Amino acid sequence: MQHPVRVVSGMRPTGALHLGHFHGVLQSWLRLQGEHDCYFFVADWHALTDQVQPVAETAIYDMVVDWLAAGIDPQRTTLFIQSRMPEHAELFTLLAMHTPLSWLERVPGFKEVAERHPSFGRLGYPLLQAADILAYKATHVPVGQDQSAHLELCREVARRLNQVVGAALFPEPAAVFSPTPRLSGLDGRKMSKSAGNAIGMREAPQEVRKKVVRMPTDPRRVHRGDVGEPERCPVWALHQVSTPSAEFAPLASGCRSAAIGCVDCKQVLLDHLLPQQAEWRARAVQHMAEPKQVHWLVEVGTERARVMARKTLRDVREGLGLKV
Amino acid sequence: MQHPVRVVSGMRPTGALHLGHFHGVLQSWLRLQGEHDCYFFVADWHALTDQVQPVAETAIYDMVVDWLAAGIDPQRTTLFIQSRMPEHAELFTLLAMHTPLSWLERVPGFKEVAERHPSFGRLGYPLLQAADILAYKATHVPVGQDQSAHLELCREVARRLNQVVGAALFPEPAAVFSPTPRLSGLDGRKMSKSAGNAIGMREAPQEVRKKVVRMPTDPRRVHRGDVGEPERCPVWALHQVSTPSAEFAPLASGCRSAAIGCVDCKQVLLDHLLPQQAEWRARAVQHMAEPKQVHWLVEVGTERARVMARKTLRDVREGLGLKV
Ligand code: SF4
Ligand code: SF4
Repeated sequence: MQHPVRVVSGMRPTGALHLGHFHGVLQSWLRLQGEHDCYFFVADWHALTDQVQPVAETAIYDMVVDWLAAGIDPQRTTLFIQSRMPEHAELFTLLAMHTPLSWLERVPGFKEVAERHPSFGRLGYPLLQAADILAYKATHVPVGQDQSAHLELCREVARRLNQVVGAALFPEPAAVFSPTPRLSGLDGRKMSKSAGNAIGMREAPQEVRKKVVRMPTDPRRVHRGDVGEPERCPVWALHQVSTPSAEFAPLASGCRSAAIGCVDCKQVLLDHLLPQQAEWRARAVQHMAEPKQVHWLVEVGTERARVMARKTLRDVREGLGLKV
Repeated sequence: MQHPVRVVSGMRPTGALHLGHFHGVLQSWLRLQGEHDCYFFVADWHALTDQVQPVAETAIYDMVVDWLAAGIDPQRTTLFIQSRMPEHAELFTLLAMHTPLSWLERVPGFKEVAERHPSFGRLGYPLLQAADILAYKATHVPVGQDQSAHLELCREVARRLNQVVGAALFPEPAAVFSPTPRLSGLDGRKMSKSAGNAIGMREAPQEVRKKVVRMPTDPRRVHRGDVGEPERCPVWALHQVSTPSAEFAPLASGCRSAAIGCVDCKQVLLDHLLPQQAEWRARAVQHMAEPKQVHWLVEVGTERARVMARKTLRDVREGLGLKV
């Protein structure tokens, strides 16, 4: 059986997104939505595995607004909310019956998780991810490098279920790796909200300018006349994602020869970053002016996803001899 | 918050039932349906935790026919099929996020299960039971003595969820113990299909007679003149459930004094057992003549159960801050 190409990916509801999210995930999504049938969802159940606090509804919609701001197109792509799909939970439950505990124990990080936050559901997290993916018979899944073990489990589970039902019910989804899995932030460490080193996708230009101006550069370039090495500079990491690559060579040689100063170098970065953010902000402003419209887009996507997930679950129930 | 009295109980689809099922479970159900709002379901997901083979649909309907034969009244009681209720899976998934693995490890038998049949789902079996029960905000649950630890877990999980959502969302269901938790079979060991020592609820009278006639009795009563001791006799265990208690004293003293022979004693048993079975068979024959009607009864029950489960899930989602 040939499975049509289909991409499924989810993101935990973390509120407004930053450049790390854009370059690590959304840019992959944008490329994929241009080529394939895509299902992107708010992984709000997954959020429950790590926190006891309820998920704020604003955290969901702020994030969805950023998806739309980035150019995710709800006409083309199915956007939905995980917790609205009992089908994922049903598939999770059925997969659980056929997944040896040892497979979950093999996923890197299992032991740490079991010691730190040992809820039964947290242990099953990679299996819930598998259900999220297999509910749509996904053929491709965008994954960070650190999640390839999760996808491996998903492939294993798909094979096992196919064996049990005696049919190629599920494809084994392939990984699509992001070109920029980890963007470094203002201080050179991985960009993250909690590290306080992030630039928000929709952050106001004056704030962004302030942050960039204050960024440390190559620590050996103390004076204007000192030569620098871009590889040691966090500003350079931002150039990699925001500045057209044609400008890399002159900037790097300017830095290495002290022909340009860090102030000039940062201005080039801002010249490319600020217009991109302005575009995102313009789209976001439109959507924020019509919150009902955003809710409705997600509503429509959720219903579209439901049709697909229901169909899959019917196949699974039938294969397992359960009432269809 | 006062929760209305509601009873929930499930049975794995094992096909046609035997006297052990009747006296161990169905008789409790009959008593409970006379007094309370009852939800009785076919636990076909639970069957998946122990076997890889699909559940035969006949196994489900043969069992439901025996429920009806016993006198379970679908007008009064809600009969449904677990696998038709994605809400149970959703609640299982949400409960899993808030249930420490250590709680499951504490359930007796966990270790044996983990070694013998270590699927992730099998480990979570007591939690899936909790979801089955809590989906209807059950206040009472009929349990065998060996399952009281499962109910204890369910109560713990209910308390935890109430804490998390900050409201008395779930009652803590109380145990209702069966008067005859384990009926012994033809050979004195626990009656079970696999042990080959069972009498089917609807078994043909000539077969039942043959089985009873061949039953071993007190091993010390070799000859008609030997005195016997009912406590050492498997026939006595069947008298306990089938014969009116007014007859116990004369039978026991007849056995102890050798005033009656085992043949007479067995005839008394048959005199009570066969008419009861004839009544069950008569009802079963009616239902088997109209299989569509039985399907329809279950269909109606499933929809009735769904209304209740959906309402509970709405409360849970709301409490956890998920989209309602
Ligand atoms: S010139 Fe640019 S790349 Fe070089 S140290 Fe300064 S900011 Fe960094
Ligand atoms: S008389 Fe009845 S109770 Fe006594 S040994 Fe015989 S069968 Fe058993």
